[in-house]
Amino acid sequence: MVRNLEYPKRAQNTVKRYDSRGTYDCGAIHQIINTTPVLHVAFPPGGDEPFAALLPMIGVMGSFDYPSADISEPLDCYLHGYVSARLMRLARDSEKGLPVTIAATKVDGLVLSLTPNSHSMNYRSAVLQGYAKPVEKVDEKLWAMEKITNKVIPDRWANTRVPPDGAEMSSTMILRVTIETASGKIRQGEPHDEAKDEKRPEITGSVWTGVVPVYEAYGEPIPSKGNQVEQLPTYINSYVARATEGNRTKALDAAKEP
Amino acid sequence: MVRNLEYPKRAQNTVKRYDSRGTYDCGAIHQIINTTPVLHVAFPPGGDEPFAALLPMIGVMGSFDYPSADISEPLDCYLHGYVSARLMRLARDSEKGLPVTIAATKVDGLVLSLTPNSHSMNYRSAVLQGYAKPVEKVDEKLWAMEKITNKVIPDRWANTRVPPDGAEMSSTMILRVTIETASGKIRQGEPHDEAKDEKRPEITGSVWTGVVPVYEAYGEPIPSKGNQVEQLPTYINSYVARATEGNRTKALDAAKEP
Repeated sequence: MVRNLEYPKRAQNTVKRYDSRGTYDCGAIHQIINTTPVLHVAFPPGGDEPFAALLPMIGVMGSFDYPSADISEPLDCYLHGYVSARLMRLARDSEKGLPVTIAATKVDGLVLSLTPNSHSMNYRSAVLQGYAKPVEKVDEKLWAMEKITNKVIPDRWANTRVPPDGAEMSSTMILRVTIETASGKIRQGEPHDEAKDEKRPEITGSVWTGVVPVYEAYGEPIPSKGNQVEQLPTYINSYVARATEGNRTKALDAAKEP
Repeated sequence: MVRNLEYPKRAQNTVKRYDSRGTYDCGAIHQIINTTPVLHVAFPPGGDEPFAALLPMIGVMGSFDYPSADISEPLDCYLHGYVSARLMRLARDSEKGLPVTIAATKVDGLVLSLTPNSHSMNYRSAVLQGYAKPVEKVDEKLWAMEKITNKVIPDRWANTRVPPDGAEMSSTMILRVTIETASGKIRQGEPHDEAKDEKRPEITGSVWTGVVPVYEAYGEPIPSKGNQVEQLPTYINSYVARATEGNRTKALDAAKEP
């Protein structure tokens, strides 16, 4: 299997500031998208509108043609969520698809240094640029819906009432984004100060420096009033514990110097 | 004091899908921005570029002219972060400012229902549309830098080496966004299924339904190798505990029917 594939560097995706934090590695970028619960999707305003459109959406990387593709191989991004009439019309009407920009950002820690200017965050962020088209084929749409549901809780799809009926299939809109370029940015490690501050004892003696780890935690699942399954299923229980612990470990690891 | 001010509804900010979740309340929208660690900022592509630009940035609501203004009063959004050369040039060169769209999304829970189509998330999201100009006045810039630093950890500014020196002031770029329109969207409560599924015992008897609370947690602060302040200061310690507990409570409250 081919590993360490990289996205091509072009004007729109080349990381300029702090470029040593930049990455073009497909696997690293896809992983950030797949572990971020909500993505932000931007597209150019149409007509006289001055403001770019920007929507929170749910999405996942995958390849319908090569469903066994590894996370580090070329993948499309499948989006679901508030697909506005405008977004659908623009995506449907354009032959190549609607140009969209997709961002995912995870905060791993607050980096507290001697002076505000060198404060930072530990984070992992990814930005994709690609062309979005509505998924029309029923089998691809079903496949993407399953993938998106299982991104929220692994195995959830098979543990619900499936398959969706005709009305559900036609009311659900999925966009497939063919990625053109992408980049990631990762900051990890300790605060870094300048010598001008580090050699002044009245500063180092009074300003606490370090990292506050930040991570997404899952609480004890709360059954709904109508729930009739008394025992919380293992696939939910174990995922909730595993995800919280995994996120916590990632935040602690990110605080260490790379 | 005037309360419950609302943003005007215009084409670009009117919530269409699930419009009962929409809000135009200034206080609610500003609060979402102020409690989201990383914002996403989009602006239209210049020239031949097909893709909207989209950047993670740090930002906070505030009024330099009326610094005591309440969260529910008209405020500007001050942005700091990776201000690209392009973003700065566009913001500086346009008389009205660069049209930017700013989004903040907080996930409060995973909402698990009988069928994938009615799955949802509890969330609070806000989108602002406004015009960005670089802050040129030194006193306004200093004021905004303090506000942005204290958004990360309250009182952090006064507990670091301040004020920034000349080199630090000129290397820091702050954008002031004059908000034109805005909207928020809030989903809370239990899963909601359709009668067609709720009345089938083979479904209700096998699918667990409920809410998995999700919240941002802060871990034990980790001192840097160079840190010389032995005792973790109270303003950090108490904030970390308070913020985690506050976020957790919000996620639990969001799981209740409104």
